[in-house]
Amino acid sequence: MNNSHPHTPEEGTDGEISSKNHRTVRVDLAERSYTVSIGAGLISKVGQLLTNLPGRKNTGRAVIITDSTVRQLYCADVMGSLQQAGFIADHIDFPAGEEHKNIRTYEVVMNALLSLEPPIDRKSIIIALGGGVVGDLAGFVAATALRGIDFVNVPTTLLADVDAAIGGKTGIDAPTGKNLIGAFHQPRAVIIDPTVLKTLPAGQMGNGLAECVKHGVIRNATLLDFIEENAEKIFSFDADILTELIARNVAIKSAVVAADEHEAGQRAHLNFGHTIGHAIEAAGGYGLVSHGQAVSLGMVAACHIARNRNLIDEQAIERLATILKKLSLPTRFADLPPLPEEVHDVGHLQDFIARDKKASLGRPRFILPAGQLGKVEIFDDVSEEEIKQAIMALMK
Amino acid sequence: MNNSHPHTPEEGTDGEISSKNHRTVRVDLAERSYTVSIGAGLISKVGQLLTNLPGRKNTGRAVIITDSTVRQLYCADVMGSLQQAGFIADHIDFPAGEEHKNIRTYEVVMNALLSLEPPIDRKSIIIALGGGVVGDLAGFVAATALRGIDFVNVPTTLLADVDAAIGGKTGIDAPTGKNLIGAFHQPRAVIIDPTVLKTLPAGQMGNGLAECVKHGVIRNATLLDFIEENAEKIFSFDADILTELIARNVAIKSAVVAADEHEAGQRAHLNFGHTIGHAIEAAGGYGLVSHGQAVSLGMVAACHIARNRNLIDEQAIERLATILKKLSLPTRFADLPPLPEEVHDVGHLQDFIARDKKASLGRPRFILPAGQLGKVEIFDDVSEEEIKQAIMALMK
Repeated sequence: MNNSHPHTPEEGTDGEISSKNHRTVRVDLAERSYTVSIGAGLISKVGQLLTNLPGRKNTGRAVIITDSTVRQLYCADVMGSLQQAGFIADHIDFPAGEEHKNIRTYEVVMNALLSLEPPIDRKSIIIALGGGVVGDLAGFVAATALRGIDFVNVPTTLLADVDAAIGGKTGIDAPTGKNLIGAFHQPRAVIIDPTVLKTLPAGQMGNGLAECVKHGVIRNATLLDFIEENAEKIFSFDADILTELIARNVAIKSAVVAADEHEAGQRAHLNFGHTIGHAIEAAGGYGLVSHGQAVSLGMVAACHIARNRNLIDEQAIERLATILKKLSLPTRFADLPPLPEEVHDVGHLQDFIARDKKASLGRPRFILPAGQLGKVEIFDDVSEEEIKQAIMALMK
Repeated sequence: MNNSHPHTPEEGTDGEISSKNHRTVRVDLAERSYTVSIGAGLISKVGQLLTNLPGRKNTGRAVIITDSTVRQLYCADVMGSLQQAGFIADHIDFPAGEEHKNIRTYEVVMNALLSLEPPIDRKSIIIALGGGVVGDLAGFVAATALRGIDFVNVPTTLLADVDAAIGGKTGIDAPTGKNLIGAFHQPRAVIIDPTVLKTLPAGQMGNGLAECVKHGVIRNATLLDFIEENAEKIFSFDADILTELIARNVAIKSAVVAADEHEAGQRAHLNFGHTIGHAIEAAGGYGLVSHGQAVSLGMVAACHIARNRNLIDEQAIERLATILKKLSLPTRFADLPPLPEEVHDVGHLQDFIARDKKASLGRPRFILPAGQLGKVEIFDDVSEEEIKQAIMALMK
């Protein structure tokens, strides 16, 4: 059955997608380099884009791995485009939700993949269709099926578009912590259709937008201007603005990854806002405070530490707060619905920070703005008192 | 507790092991290169050898992963040497046996690893202590814990010494087939003590020796002379002869791996004898015919195909058969204890060959001697009739 409904607004020769509203970003990782394609309508052109991947035969077995929610929305489109491009297409789905990103789901999906007839081989390709959970789990399945087969990311949330889909981190959660089991396995391509963001549940855009602000603070202050100027168009899902926003963020993320694929150095900059942010998210048991809300508060807290060290001035904090407010992201605990005591208890949060895996060598690692927004440095000497002061600032 | 009983017969400065009876082989894989150290007594020097690994801090957390059998024999020695060298040492074991090389065991071992206190970090190192099952499973745990940490192989069977421990293939079995889940993850070092082979169960040496003969047939006929001349010393566990035997085989295996790390080309040569061999092993439900016995029969069968194609002469088959007999390896089904009908039923075996994952593109792939013993080529055109004739030859 062919369920493809191609939009085909502009199409070049040889199946190449060409449009002033389509953007591509190259992720430069030597022989593991790949292209991120961003544009309205690409969800129905996945098959076509895969036939253009260098070093791959044009056809073969392609298996979509997705979750129960995204399957209902976009699986038919992608299946149709794969079949139209000549692939033997299948799909496997698992229940939506971060709580399913575990070894049990990995096992079920892997066994389903290895039971397909005719069997997959090393030339088969996985399509990870969904948000960050799908990309992480499907990527890990691809990394470990037959000791590693190709996969492409087709993210369907803004958070996955600008963050999880780029960089090759794959994995699942363990009982003792998130993302503790996994592999570095780069996708062969990333295909992003911003029009699918319209179907995101309310509030989900904030998770991606917090990471966009983070990218601006760590690398490029003019991205902050772009976000501020275009906030309304972003929330009304203007396809051209979303394409531009995603392309700029993918360019920043991929440049950081290209410089430090296995997180030995500057890739740590991407943790700006995440040290205290993770603690707030974890203290709420995940789900009470969203990732975007937690990172938003974490970025404000980090800036307070930086201001108290005279690394940035008061104006920088105010500028960050203005942008976050425009994006409906919190800058103080009071901006959130009433929370249980422990989520904003200083001692409790400090316990979570100490427990974070990146803090195993003693003091927690902080990424702080240095001099101005757009530039950060790594600090391993932030004291408990400084952290306490920063958390207290969120309570004003 | 320090359970180390170091033999320390010869020891150079700076912890370097120096002896005319110690051999090292370099596995040349660019930035993933590593050294295989072979010598009597090395089982008690694992910690010392690890402190000399380039690019690693001298101490940190080291975790032995082993099985219930090997734990009782050698875990205390290795634990002691790790502690003596300054490591925080732990060990995790799982029940011995190929039937435990599955995702359930992987999960239990992984959760135990991720629950250690203080927690492991990316600088921690795994020591895979045991036979092929341990190396495969512990290597896969190392490949996927925290998205990949270092590991070293300390093999304790001849089969693991000359085959599984070299080359970076890690993984576990799936319900639909062996080794279908895994990763390529090269060890940082391989440490082989031939004196531990004395504790192998009877018959286990044959599994390794069949692979040694295979290495001779695919790359180096003088290795066949060495094996033939030293068969008695091998079976009496002469440490110098075993060191030499292992070093020669490791050199062949590692040269093949270095030329083709991810099995895109000549690494397939290592499957000589395994196409029909795997079918015989699988037809017996694994365990009835040992891997070494199955490969031995498979090599003879492959040589029959080669002889019928005039690729080699009758003398070559006779030479191979003479060596295998000297090693108590079978050259005909009649050399084995009486087997159920299906294990030597031609049609049944051909079904298993067709089902093999390496055969997914149509005809099964065969590695056949070409011209003489010591040289092989890949053939994808072997007919069912040729396979049938070769299996029939094993029944004479």
